[in-house]
Amino acid sequence: MVKSPGPAAPPRIPLAAAVGRTGSSAIRDLLEITERPEVLSLAGGLPTPEAFPVAALAAATADVLADDAEAALQYGATEGFRPLRTWVADRYAVEVDEVTVTHGSQQALELLARATTDPGQVIALADPGYVGAVQAFRAAGATLAGIASDAHGLRVDDLAARLADGLRPTLVYVVADLDNPTGATLPLERRAALVDLAERYGFWIVDDDPYGTLRWAGSRPTPLRDLSDRVISLGTTSKMLCPGLRVGWAVAPAELSRAVVVLKQAADLHTGSLSQQVVHRLVTRPDGWFDAHLAVVRDRYHAQADALMAELRAQLGDRLAFRTPEGGMFLWATVAGSSGTGGDVDTSELLRRALDHGVAFVPGAAFGVERPHRHALRLSFATATPADLAEAVRRLARTLEVP
Amino acid sequence: MVKSPGPAAPPRIPLAAAVGRTGSSAIRDLLEITERPEVLSLAGGLPTPEAFPVAALAAATADVLADDAEAALQYGATEGFRPLRTWVADRYAVEVDEVTVTHGSQQALELLARATTDPGQVIALADPGYVGAVQAFRAAGATLAGIASDAHGLRVDDLAARLADGLRPTLVYVVADLDNPTGATLPLERRAALVDLAERYGFWIVDDDPYGTLRWAGSRPTPLRDLSDRVISLGTTSKMLCPGLRVGWAVAPAELSRAVVVLKQAADLHTGSLSQQVVHRLVTRPDGWFDAHLAVVRDRYHAQADALMAELRAQLGDRLAFRTPEGGMFLWATVAGSSGTGGDVDTSELLRRALDHGVAFVPGAAFGVERPHRHALRLSFATATPADLAEAVRRLARTLEVP
Repeated sequence: MVKSPGPAAPPRIPLAAAVGRTGSSAIRDLLEITERPEVLSLAGGLPTPEAFPVAALAAATADVLADDAEAALQYGATEGFRPLRTWVADRYAVEVDEVTVTHGSQQALELLARATTDPGQVIALADPGYVGAVQAFRAAGATLAGIASDAHGLRVDDLAARLADGLRPTLVYVVADLDNPTGATLPLERRAALVDLAERYGFWIVDDDPYGTLRWAGSRPTPLRDLSDRVISLGTTSKMLCPGLRVGWAVAPAELSRAVVVLKQAADLHTGSLSQQVVHRLVTRPDGWFDAHLAVVRDRYHAQADALMAELRAQLGDRLAFRTPEGGMFLWATVAGSSGTGGDVDTSELLRRALDHGVAFVPGAAFGVERPHRHALRLSFATATPADLAEAVRRLARTLEVP
Repeated sequence: MVKSPGPAAPPRIPLAAAVGRTGSSAIRDLLEITERPEVLSLAGGLPTPEAFPVAALAAATADVLADDAEAALQYGATEGFRPLRTWVADRYAVEVDEVTVTHGSQQALELLARATTDPGQVIALADPGYVGAVQAFRAAGATLAGIASDAHGLRVDDLAARLADGLRPTLVYVVADLDNPTGATLPLERRAALVDLAERYGFWIVDDDPYGTLRWAGSRPTPLRDLSDRVISLGTTSKMLCPGLRVGWAVAPAELSRAVVVLKQAADLHTGSLSQQVVHRLVTRPDGWFDAHLAVVRDRYHAQADALMAELRAQLGDRLAFRTPEGGMFLWATVAGSSGTGGDVDTSELLRRALDHGVAFVPGAAFGVERPHRHALRLSFATATPADLAEAVRRLARTLEVP
């Protein structure tokens, strides 16, 4: 809260409390690391620009401006461009009035938190958890509860124990498919158990799904929204097309959607009209371009994930334990003490040394809600070429003093 | 606040309080009125699509995607695209770290309100006032104080009296140039007095300026920001280029800008990258296109304002008193009781009859903060052609039973 300057004094600006500085500066510092030219970064959360459909976007933009410039450039409805909402509604098999288009799923998260949660109330999420969600929930003044997670995602039994102990969240946030940072997919039995808890204790489930279209292995269990009407589904074009258009959506029961729309109207009137129209053109191209494009993006990430894993196995051996990703952009790993040094490696400390060797990752602590995740780290295979991945892992091996 | 559904019951969604429904539904109802095809609307707040620079936008977009697609489509800095921030900083003669690019000035308003004002604290503004500002301030939980205004804008003497009585706003909101809805421009002596009060009582001044480039008469007094470092200036491309790109900005002291950026990062990460780059291309075109374009837009509004005034004088005589606009998009008028009927006309009632006659305006009540403005109405001359303006005024004359 930045108070007004106060009488007679020069403007006094105590930076305070609505948003925790930690989450914010964590993201910002990470972005800064990735920008150093000498660093091969596996730290980024960015999709690869190599997969941006530049030509298709240019053509779609030209077409929109030729065919319907007025609607693309004028103020639009707060709920979003109706044909795009209709496409989303069809995709999720819901009514169009359950769909709100937002400036990325980040905005959906923040508006939903404000619409459902009073300052001081509790929002629960997996620990480790997505930094942007933590930030949005803190901005809404929520108290966060970090629930244990494992290779299968949120430990619903841990959530159940916390609920039995009296925890009363308004909202439980999950990335049920190809979680960030862990890559985990929540199995059906956990989904069913989570929904049962939602019914019993009365909370919303927000299912954030930026990576679902990037699955190349395993299978997707029944979506949470098919199991309960307490589920809000978020989607985004950031990883399917590109982030710079800032087009995402929330699919929520109509009354909750109306509350989100009221907040969104105050927040920014509506999502960019031209961006929404361009997205709509691309995703509904009659030649099937969109599905073909998704396949290309998926294949690229799959190949890069395989390349990273091969290098890690070859160069780091058992020094780094990791889960084989079934999709998405990230690999979640744990550093073991090497037999030679027997060290207890703190990945935040390790990052400083890694930067000296010209390689970056995100230490587990950045994703901590209640837990430190001292031995964990997140590697992105999204942006680096296989050659860069190999060199990055060589630098990582040097950092870890793997002989 | 939409509470979580609660145990065992079907989702219960009491729509409540973070945002007053009045402001929201007022805007929404107005937008709906303007969409009825049989209605000639002078109610809209939209700029004319005839002035949208479609060809220039198409060319700029194609150039950006040809030259710098990666930056235009990737995630970007929360503060905004640096070359655009630099352009804004030059325009306002400030440092670049005082500039934050936002999704329209609406977002700047909402973030500033949340950054400076705790729920229950007071924000003051002219009464009648801009509906979107009222909505943003209410969404932040602020208590609103409506300060009297007249043909010269905010009655700073009224504000001084309220302050002497104990009112302690965190922030005073003004549209100092070509106000919406009244069209008024705050004279220099009132600006100086307002700044003195800000220094004495310790509040921020937010100077929202969507219409400054649309001035064709009178002269612009010294900007408020040149008189005090307690002034935050807002700008937008919505009326200079088009609203659908959602690009605006806040110019604020660096520390306050940092607080806004923290909130913005949680809110939506950053403003659309492609939109910012396209705007930057257009406003910095080396052939002077931007200034020439602004002149064209200004001339169009000027001609339409003159046409509307001529029709009002010719067809309504002294039934409607109005101020001659010096720019902008709106004319603020007051209905007098006609000699024939001697009526005390309530413009909200009048609107219902007007719609039956196929014409729409915004009744003064829509802009009321503490006052009803029962006899006032706002007419937009932005979108209607001179022929439509003439017909709209004929319908207005029928509504008012002018013989």
